Amino acid sequence: MNHSNLIIYIFEMIGTVAFASSGALVGIRKNMDIFGVNVLGITTAVGGGCIRDIILGITPPKMFQNFSYVGASILISCILFTIFYLNQELLSSRFLETYERVMISLDAIGLGVFTVMGIRTAIEASFENNIFLLIFVGAVTGIGGGMLRDVMAGMTPFVFVKHVYAIASILGAVCYIILRLYIRDTISLFLGAAVVLIIRLLAAHFRWNLPRIRQK
Amino acid sequence: MNHSNLIIYIFEMIGTVAFASSGALVGIRKNMDIFGVNVLGITTAVGGGCIRDIILGITPPKMFQNFSYVGASILISCILFTIFYLNQELLSSRFLETYERVMISLDAIGLGVFTVMGIRTAIEASFENNIFLLIFVGAVTGIGGGMLRDVMAGMTPFVFVKHVYAIASILGAVCYIILRLYIRDTISLFLGAAVVLIIRLLAAHFRWNLPRIRQK
Amino acid sequence: MNHSNLIIYIFEMIGTVAFASSGALVGIRKNMDIFGVNVLGITTAVGGGCIRDIILGITPPKMFQNFSYVGASILISCILFTIFYLNQELLSSRFLETYERVMISLDAIGLGVFTVMGIRTAIEASFENNIFLLIFVGAVTGIGGGMLRDVMAGMTPFVFVKHVYAIASILGAVCYIILRLYIRDTISLFLGAAVVLIIRLLAAHFRWNLPRIRQK
Repeated sequence: MNHSNLIIYIFEMIGTVAFASSGALVGIRKNMDIFGVNVLGITTAVGGGCIRDIILGITPPKMFQNFSYVGASILISCILFTIFYLNQELLSSRFLETYERVMISLDAIGLGVFTVMGIRTAIEASFENNIFLLIFVGAVTGIGGGMLRDVMAGMTPFVFVKHVYAIASILGAVCYIILRLYIRDTISLFLGAAVVLIIRLLAAHFRWNLPRIRQK
Repeated sequence: MNHSNLIIYIFEMIGTVAFASSGALVGIRKNMDIFGVNVLGITTAVGGGCIRDIILGITPPKMFQNFSYVGASILISCILFTIFYLNQELLSSRFLETYERVMISLDAIGLGVFTVMGIRTAIEASFENNIFLLIFVGAVTGIGGGMLRDVMAGMTPFVFVKHVYAIASILGAVCYIILRLYIRDTISLFLGAAVVLIIRLLAAHFRWNLPRIRQK
Repeated sequence: MNHSNLIIYIFEMIGTVAFASSGALVGIRKNMDIFGVNVLGITTAVGGGCIRDIILGITPPKMFQNFSYVGASILISCILFTIFYLNQELLSSRFLETYERVMISLDAIGLGVFTVMGIRTAIEASFENNIFLLIFVGAVTGIGGGMLRDVMAGMTPFVFVKHVYAIASILGAVCYIILRLYIRDTISLFLGAAVVLIIRLLAAHFRWNLPRIRQK
């Protein structure tokens, strides 16, 4: 594993932990048992990549080739479950608010890294010339896990109703796809992820929202 | 593109626009932002074919080989969003009622065309001798998008509870599969689609429903 | 078909009937029409195996190679629909209670058989050395149909909230995978299924539940 691969792996792990946390927290709030909390944690973390691989015909999906992503998801889900099990008052406290603020940043890192890594996976599977497919699998890798989480928990997918989330993923995807035609792949990878991260954080901070029709 | 292929393409586009419209309208009513409205529009239009391709092992799915279906879905979703954004009173007006009546006819055309084209796709992928598979992928291509739309919007799938919808698709599928053994493929294709269309319109007009157990 | 294959087939059919029944009953209670009841019955019975096959890249899924599973699901769904259609008072009676008690046992047999058969399918597709994949597809084959049923019916998946269900499947999967390294495959298959069955029945009888965080 060379230097830039190591950096990518570290960022992927940050994203995995952030996504798994968001899934586990939804499960905890929906009063699921520790198994359900783990399923939601794992699904949120690796679900997007799994959908991507099925679309690309990569079987079995990559989540089965390297256990560390699922392993990290299980670990963080169990840790969160234990913390809130032992301290139920945390669920209605300041702690959760702070925790979620931290999570938004980690989640944005995950969104960025997963988006560009999804595109790289498609390129490696030799779909380089299908621009629409590249953008699609980038966005699916980034937001698919969260959509599965919400559908499984019986909620309207977050991505449909709040803040600029999917758009950040799509814009970063487009940046990466254009940049890699002109500069080194790894550098464009990081720049694409950075674009996602920055747009997402700005959107969260300033509460940017896409237009929507308010019904009286 | 020869004559009958052009006619098929025109009918496919009519179906795509009708399906995308029904998805976009659900998104607008569920108060989703413009991104969510587009996702629901695209999903409804191409979701059924996507499930079919994954079942048949056609990867990446055909929606990635010809952008015009997704492009048309995005276009109609954005047009509808803009119309209702600028004229919110339309949402509770006569206009919507008329619009939906027109849509039922277009939707029925889509259901018919998608059903038979789904079967043709499976035949081209050399599954000609598996009758059950042919009927299944025909129906999935026809009704799968609408089912995904409803699940994503948090509703009980329409197809489970109202009017003879899936049955029309299945009966047309059976007609096409039988007819093509005796007459030219293209003619049986149109006849199969016509059967779906006619049954569906009759069912909508006379409010035919399948039996159901009303609980006191 | 030799002796042990016949026994496996019989157990698979018991599981299919039990799973299809549970799906059909959910549809009946959700006031779906006879088509919806059939879709839920079929989905619950063969949905888990279908997800497994897509993950393993077995296309088209095995449900299309042997119609008897889908056929049995349609048969039992129609029978149940007819019974409750003709005798609506049964829906609120003692009969249903007894029926569901019988179903829990049949369902446990199905869970056991489907879990180990899912693993065997993956082994036959030469994924023998990927332990995590084996456990995953075993559990997905066992519980996937029920999860699809609940999502399609708009409910929080049962498996997330009640009794030790998925855990039974996972423990039996682990037993089968370990045992088959030491004793004959068919014997370990039955022992693995038996472990699932016993844990599941004990859990249902003693109302074992996994820990969960009760929110005030």
